[in-house]
Amino acid sequence: MTTSVNTARSGGRELEHPSRAEMRLEGVLHALSDPMRLRIVHELARVEDELPCSHFDLPVTKSTLTHHFRVLRESGVVQQTYRGTAKMNGLRRADLAALYPGLLDSLLGALGRQNDRLGEG
Amino acid sequence: MTTSVNTARSGGRELEHPSRAEMRLEGVLHALSDPMRLRIVHELARVEDELPCSHFDLPVTKSTLTHHFRVLRESGVVQQTYRGTAKMNGLRRADLAALYPGLLDSLLGALGRQNDRLGEG
Repeated sequence: MTTSVNTARSGGRELEHPSRAEMRLEGVLHALSDPMRLRIVHELARVEDELPCSHFDLPVTKSTLTHHFRVLRESGVVQQTYRGTAKMNGLRRADLAALYPGLLDSLLGALGRQNDRLGEG
Repeated sequence: MTTSVNTARSGGRELEHPSRAEMRLEGVLHALSDPMRLRIVHELARVEDELPCSHFDLPVTKSTLTHHFRVLRESGVVQQTYRGTAKMNGLRRADLAALYPGLLDSLLGALGRQNDRLGEG
């Protein structure tokens, strides 16, 4: 079952994405096991839309931010597509819901509760 | 809020456990981002009881197995207590449910679906 687009093409630039069949729960959890990556996913879920990397004002270097997006993409959590010069990021909600029904919302709920508890978010 | 026992004592041996206040979602997800640790948690949930480390027949060395249990303990997923010569392991269901309602069952459900999909379990 490879319903997902494995590569996102634009102007000769391609970004590799795992198909649903290639996605693994342990990889998804690893992608979400970092505070910065959790903040990215939280924001993508909040706006319910794609966002460019430049949208995110996180306390990390640009290369570290790029790394975080790559981990999210390679695990199947995020789809990255070039739109002109911008790299757009969107949650792969449909793929995650098909493989692990309810998991993403459960994780986002847990994150929201933790942010409330720690006075963050 | 430190309702949890921070150390488990027996015969002078103590094992450090994070309190609820010290537990972090990213740490819990990191602990669950490894296939062997997911198998341990799956088995502990299945039997609904404490199990000694020696119960687990996983394709890793004994020192690696010890490492996996330590990661699970230090993140707050598992409580480890000495009973005589055995180190017993139990899921911290109440603490996880209090901090992140529904998350553990959601994760176990996702794992079950993945095991079915990959013909494992």
